Amino acid sequence: MKAEIITIGDEILIGQIIDTNSGWIAKQLLRFEVDIVQMTSIPDTEEAISKTLKDASSRADLILITGGLGPTKDDVTKKTAAKYFETTLVRDENVLRHVTNIFESRKLQMLDINLQQADVLANCEVLFNDYGTAPGMLVNQGEKRFIFMPGVPFEMKFLMEKHVLPLLATQDPDLFICHETILVGGIGESYLAEKIKDIESELPPSIKLAYLPTLAFIRLRLSGKSRNKSDIMLQVALFKKKLIHRLQQYVVADYDTGIESHLIKELTHRGSTLTTAESCTGGSLAASITSVAGSSAVFLGGTIPYSNKLKHQLLNVNEETLAQYGAVSEQTAVEMASGSKAAFSSDYAIATTGIAGPGGGTAEKPVGTIWVAVAGKKEIITKKFQFDNDRLINIERTRMNALLLLWQLLLKEKEQEAQ
Amino acid sequence: MKAEIITIGDEILIGQIIDTNSGWIAKQLLRFEVDIVQMTSIPDTEEAISKTLKDASSRADLILITGGLGPTKDDVTKKTAAKYFETTLVRDENVLRHVTNIFESRKLQMLDINLQQADVLANCEVLFNDYGTAPGMLVNQGEKRFIFMPGVPFEMKFLMEKHVLPLLATQDPDLFICHETILVGGIGESYLAEKIKDIESELPPSIKLAYLPTLAFIRLRLSGKSRNKSDIMLQVALFKKKLIHRLQQYVVADYDTGIESHLIKELTHRGSTLTTAESCTGGSLAASITSVAGSSAVFLGGTIPYSNKLKHQLLNVNEETLAQYGAVSEQTAVEMASGSKAAFSSDYAIATTGIAGPGGGTAEKPVGTIWVAVAGKKEIITKKFQFDNDRLINIERTRMNALLLLWQLLLKEKEQEAQ
Repeated sequence: MKAEIITIGDEILIGQIIDTNSGWIAKQLLRFEVDIVQMTSIPDTEEAISKTLKDASSRADLILITGGLGPTKDDVTKKTAAKYFETTLVRDENVLRHVTNIFESRKLQMLDINLQQADVLANCEVLFNDYGTAPGMLVNQGEKRFIFMPGVPFEMKFLMEKHVLPLLATQDPDLFICHETILVGGIGESYLAEKIKDIESELPPSIKLAYLPTLAFIRLRLSGKSRNKSDIMLQVALFKKKLIHRLQQYVVADYDTGIESHLIKELTHRGSTLTTAESCTGGSLAASITSVAGSSAVFLGGTIPYSNKLKHQLLNVNEETLAQYGAVSEQTAVEMASGSKAAFSSDYAIATTGIAGPGGGTAEKPVGTIWVAVAGKKEIITKKFQFDNDRLINIERTRMNALLLLWQLLLKEKEQEAQ
Repeated sequence: MKAEIITIGDEILIGQIIDTNSGWIAKQLLRFEVDIVQMTSIPDTEEAISKTLKDASSRADLILITGGLGPTKDDVTKKTAAKYFETTLVRDENVLRHVTNIFESRKLQMLDINLQQADVLANCEVLFNDYGTAPGMLVNQGEKRFIFMPGVPFEMKFLMEKHVLPLLATQDPDLFICHETILVGGIGESYLAEKIKDIESELPPSIKLAYLPTLAFIRLRLSGKSRNKSDIMLQVALFKKKLIHRLQQYVVADYDTGIESHLIKELTHRGSTLTTAESCTGGSLAASITSVAGSSAVFLGGTIPYSNKLKHQLLNVNEETLAQYGAVSEQTAVEMASGSKAAFSSDYAIATTGIAGPGGGTAEKPVGTIWVAVAGKKEIITKKFQFDNDRLINIERTRMNALLLLWQLLLKEKEQEAQ
């Protein structure tokens, strides 16, 4: 089955918000035999909405639309859809009761425009929205299925999980699609490609290999597509095995995961604990670790000693070290990591210090100079980075490389233990 | 001028990465008289690329394409573009020298596929990529202009800033577009709409009003479009003034800004300092504050006392308080905020504690129970939230509401000082 995702909203087209709905929906559809052929973002205009609905239905069987269902005047999706499907809007009594209940339970006054939230396409199946006032709508037109959802991410997610995915689960199988992913770290994209080029050229047409690089890791994704499920699964598994065998020490994980989840899983498995001491990453390292459910089993906590005073106060970094080598130095990074490990009794500690920019650089230590230290069971490893001028990229690169460094230390310890 | 943005890459369509390039590009184009009519994400296939280039050029004058220029086999953009423009790929000597230099300076071995990075469309103007090996390409076809850029965000950004935006700056003015934005907090979308509905209905057809809600704030954006620049600017300014006058205490900022930047600006202006103490937000609050350049003038640092032991050790939260009321309680939140303010000598401190989920809930304190406390010059204000089951949404909602609470305390103090 082919699907398209349409996101409606001027705010996307002027870059005021990033469309994260499409990516989330796409990820869910992976589980089903659905192939997404296009994602389109368009403005809140009748013309764009009608044209895009038409184009999408010429390419896909399932059209998922988010946005433009709000109570305010700039939201025109519903009335445009009514015209497109040559139908009218009718007030749905059940939705009206639901909307009224929401307002009553929150002790809020009901406004006229809130009543309009209960208006739905006359020919649709209403998809109840337990989390908000705008209901979803499902419209079948010939062989094509259109599903309208609100653009608010958690309302959309609820509707997808409650109503849309169960529908897809029961559809007739058409083509079988399977994906296998390997997380690779510590090697550049072209080196990786060179290393596996003979395996890549052996791939049959039914299997595609994609390189998905981030700032410090690359996900290698094998995608197989066939009407013969067991055969394609076997072939994809075989090529995955070949890649893992070839890449050995660069393979961080042999399944589709983020580095944060993988590290939490590894540390949980070992019964080890972790703390962080972040200067230049400003909390983003800890935030990415704690975004993983269950991280509290491993992560005791962290500090963000932005000022030198706090580096000393929180982590016992020597004032002479700061005076002699500066806050951005290997010595300070080492003392931050060992100080964090000692003060909070963790098994591992990651420390970051650097000049994220755009200000604060000097001739000796230009913007983008970063030190990362990771303290482990027996030793502390460090690495210096020289990045560029973009503050957010420098922070993100440091964060990812700090996680890579922790993984490399864990690997080293594992190898030493095995000897 | 009308523009479209096309992002190419299977990884987007299966939701493995979120397309942030389109939003960034859109934001830059706002400064020019460019109207983005569509954003499209398509897979790495010749068919999709050719069809989308054709469709986009039927709607827009400027087509910006990112992705698929990498050295690996899954990247087919260049050869598809050569077919589309009925031209060939030629090896560019300057680009080749640049690529070779990059490899030499990094002391890396040059691979065959890296040589192909220097292949460009024969009829294009090469846009040099100082930050990477894949050059950008500009192709003029009749009245239409196509610009191909790599998908790696910081390479694309460099090419946009160095080559593309300067081109746009020199184009003939066609239609003048202006935007004015107000950041509003502490009021729901439908209440806001009700409060300003008479102003909204007075708007002329040349001015559009959009509501851009996040989890705790709404940006109200007025967009004017006219051939008469001074007239439309005046009218937009007039309606902005009306909205600000009507919304008074809900107006956080009268310009297009994020709450983090605005708070940093306010605190810098007052010469005040800030610390954070984050349990349930796990560092994301500090990360969002420190993502703002110049935040170190205000932000001394923060702590992430995930365990109870660290709440006591870092912030001096009373062990009896933790035992009697629990880590997720108003009392603990208050002691975290006052402890952070006292221990690190800051003027303000924000504390968050809660059960982000999905685990850890009890009958008395279900998942989504959150306490936020903000310590100010004279008093500590607190607020309890009862959110739902989604960990990441709970973290993000808490983060935004914590910033809103700090803003509300600053406003209260300002009013008290004025009396």
